[in-house]
Amino acid sequence: MRDVCVIGLGLLGGSLLRAAATAGRAVWGAASGDDAAAARAAGFDATTDTTRALRRAAESDALVVLAVPLPAVDEVLTLVARHAPECLLTDVTSVKTPVLTSVRELAGRVRYAGGHPMAGTTDSGWAAGDGTLFDGASWALCVEDDTDLTAWRETAVLALDVGATVCPLTATEHDDTVARISHLPHLFAEVLAAVAARNGPLAGALAAGSFRDSTRVAATRPELVQAMTEGNRAALLPVLDEALGALGAARGSLASTGGLAATINAGHAGVTSLQRHTLNDRTAIHIDLNAADARTALAALGHQGGRVTVVDDATVTAEVPGEQDFS
Amino acid sequence: MRDVCVIGLGLLGGSLLRAAATAGRAVWGAASGDDAAAARAAGFDATTDTTRALRRAAESDALVVLAVPLPAVDEVLTLVARHAPECLLTDVTSVKTPVLTSVRELAGRVRYAGGHPMAGTTDSGWAAGDGTLFDGASWALCVEDDTDLTAWRETAVLALDVGATVCPLTATEHDDTVARISHLPHLFAEVLAAVAARNGPLAGALAAGSFRDSTRVAATRPELVQAMTEGNRAALLPVLDEALGALGAARGSLASTGGLAATINAGHAGVTSLQRHTLNDRTAIHIDLNAADARTALAALGHQGGRVTVVDDATVTAEVPGEQDFS
Repeated sequence: MRDVCVIGLGLLGGSLLRAAATAGRAVWGAASGDDAAAARAAGFDATTDTTRALRRAAESDALVVLAVPLPAVDEVLTLVARHAPECLLTDVTSVKTPVLTSVRELAGRVRYAGGHPMAGTTDSGWAAGDGTLFDGASWALCVEDDTDLTAWRETAVLALDVGATVCPLTATEHDDTVARISHLPHLFAEVLAAVAARNGPLAGALAAGSFRDSTRVAATRPELVQAMTEGNRAALLPVLDEALGALGAARGSLASTGGLAATINAGHAGVTSLQRHTLNDRTAIHIDLNAADARTALAALGHQGGRVTVVDDATVTAEVPGEQDFS
Repeated sequence: MRDVCVIGLGLLGGSLLRAAATAGRAVWGAASGDDAAAARAAGFDATTDTTRALRRAAESDALVVLAVPLPAVDEVLTLVARHAPECLLTDVTSVKTPVLTSVRELAGRVRYAGGHPMAGTTDSGWAAGDGTLFDGASWALCVEDDTDLTAWRETAVLALDVGATVCPLTATEHDDTVARISHLPHLFAEVLAAVAARNGPLAGALAAGSFRDSTRVAATRPELVQAMTEGNRAALLPVLDEALGALGAARGSLASTGGLAATINAGHAGVTSLQRHTLNDRTAIHIDLNAADARTALAALGHQGGRVTVVDDATVTAEVPGEQDFS
């Protein structure tokens, strides 16, 4: 099993350090003072010296995982280029095109596959971490025309080791998808919370579980929400426009005819189709990572909603949603 | 304990029939064929003959609870005016001004206090009902300048009997509040589900728990969402405009400076202030229902986020959020 070096020991990095250690890996990490001290107190090999951690990764050909917030990625990549210039590299940042661009510009010789585990809580920092955080989660793992397949494979094996399944997709597809399923929902939750709070104590007194569900993510630390939404600006803008168009149409219809059937039926059909993708029969397929079209096959798999469940030498086993319709 | 006659035995009416029976009340109900048959099969006194149920209520001076969907309210009120014209009446409909207007127009002699228990699931019908549905829920109970305080008191006692706490407020305040904490969240969930479903299987494969939380209510039967949102049109329109204004500002800021701090900070402050209203210290106060200013005192209590926890003869005991600030 390949060694793992985690840079950044907050919620995701700290959870990954714990989970990889539990899976039997040799692990070490680097982080800012508080998180590094907390990790050391918990018995882990953690330092504030990122350079030292990266040099050790270069020596042992470890997989380096960037788990710092997006605004800090460029600074760490500069250190990677200097101290582990050809390392196997992945990241857990919530946007993928900006990180891919930075890697190409700042650390062009690393072997990189961008990742994003779809797991988290509204808390942050080492103390919020949990070695079981990735159990059953989906782990987006990017595959472009030129992705290094050793980096892709090693990251996939780590993700599977810590209990996730792997969704291969391009960085562009990833950023569009998370704009829809994460960043737009965050903005909607912020607006709902602000609008509800405007009528003060009454909203708090009457709010039921469904309102708490709708606004839960608005309790996330503002700087984290800012980093993920602002960092995905290019993909988020057109998705926000789609949403504004749909809400504007609802507003116009409510004001004129008083009817909201089109909006409500579209939403109900949407949630039904999303549940169907989750619930339906799955077919197992295999992809040979040594085949010439391996990258294309992986991206096509993800595009259909497929998930990698096993990586065995150079063979990927995946489940693809079946055609059966449960609606 | 006063007898209870429930008209409409779907999710709310069916749950109330069960809960009131468990609390030791004599209960009977009327509903359309399927729900009435299911209630009878479960051992309850249920009929499809609304007239007969209302006549029995008039004879025993029972509390009549309207638990039919908003579009059916007027038809039932016409029957109430004919067969139980001076009965004690409440309802559990999700909007209050339209029902109050209908009661005044169609059954002007009844003693009425409008109610709305803040509880529910995405399912509907007798089978979805549950005698513990109201445990710990907030029950909005309207008080206007001319509200009959016997109807208000009898409904409050029933709500407390089935495990809820009671929030007194005016119909106008109620409709504005539920537009903010329920109807706007429903529309947002519909739009989120529709926008996410547009990129097909990928959204389903990557969606995590936070997305399911954000869109859960989009699984509600479309006709129920339509009835509640369209029925609250007058209050929902200005709230929808507030939300569109906030989202439009976010869109403009993201497109120009790229910054979303104002949107995100407002949302975080909102959710923090709502939690504070829920969590903080509470002071007990008492209101005498025989006092000349009882209605004003009740409405002021609700306006501060207060909840009635005990009704004893003519004295209401309530908890009001304290001044302490936990932020």
